[in-house]
Amino acid sequence: MTRILGIDPGSQRTGVGIIDVDATGRARHVHHQALVLLGEGGFAQRLRRLLDGLGALIDEYRPDEAAIEQVFVGRSPESALKLGQARGAAISAVVLRDLPVSEYAAREVKLAVVGTGGAEKAQVQHMVAAMLGLSGRLQADAADALAVALTHAHVRATARRLGVAAREAWSRK
Amino acid sequence: MTRILGIDPGSQRTGVGIIDVDATGRARHVHHQALVLLGEGGFAQRLRRLLDGLGALIDEYRPDEAAIEQVFVGRSPESALKLGQARGAAISAVVLRDLPVSEYAAREVKLAVVGTGGAEKAQVQHMVAAMLGLSGRLQADAADALAVALTHAHVRATARRLGVAAREAWSRK
Repeated sequence: MTRILGIDPGSQRTGVGIIDVDATGRARHVHHQALVLLGEGGFAQRLRRLLDGLGALIDEYRPDEAAIEQVFVGRSPESALKLGQARGAAISAVVLRDLPVSEYAAREVKLAVVGTGGAEKAQVQHMVAAMLGLSGRLQADAADALAVALTHAHVRATARRLGVAAREAWSRK
Repeated sequence: MTRILGIDPGSQRTGVGIIDVDATGRARHVHHQALVLLGEGGFAQRLRRLLDGLGALIDEYRPDEAAIEQVFVGRSPESALKLGQARGAAISAVVLRDLPVSEYAAREVKLAVVGTGGAEKAQVQHMVAAMLGLSGRLQADAADALAVALTHAHVRATARRLGVAAREAWSRK
């Protein structure tokens, strides 16, 4: 059994999703939540909330591996910078705890979860809930985090079937 | 005596500069270097090198406060994202060690160090070396890091003269 932490970083809210996968790639829902970064204090305090919040979840749930969504940067450089800072803090929380971290493009996540790289956000939310047997509407950031965790589970299982060392899946740039 | 850590974050190289300032605002050079992030491994390993490298310097030199340059984002969103990630990791290293961190715009740094917000990079390097009594040409990223530390020293001394709590200088932004 491998526990996977999925992260969908954002400068206002960071989605976190944790699943367990067995040797065949079958997934079980463990936890999901959105860490809200806004509130008191300046930019450093906001990053600290992410670093501490994500760190506390890692310490509580003890995942074996982490997966993070490659963010969409077709926005302004200012938004990209803020998003990058949140990503940098999220990755810091993960590497500080020695978790291997893989990165997946939004298109790969949609392909793995819905079956088409051009899927809508609502389809991702629907499929994530269906795959993990969750009822009710999932918060969007948490759904994306669970989706990237499911993508990593899928890639791991495929790599295993093909006899490729899991390590190679991890070191994807 | 207050020890200030200045940081000029970059996705390939991060400048670090450490100075001591006395109650009158007079500065003494302690250390400077550029942390090189490129090399082995993917993006997460690169951020880890920054997180670990900066953390080791903080543990060795034990600064009291940190100052970071607000980066110029008039580039592509992709560059801004990478720069943001480096900034996020640098700020993580600092807040993990409970250092208060202030942020200064490039224009404020030039104004404090050279006396004009539109100063050239070479002028900043020259003035930083002169203010700290350093001979020889300073590496550009380290010079920028020392410049932001000197700016923070200047702002602190001014705040003190005006009777404003140093805390207010810290919580800028």
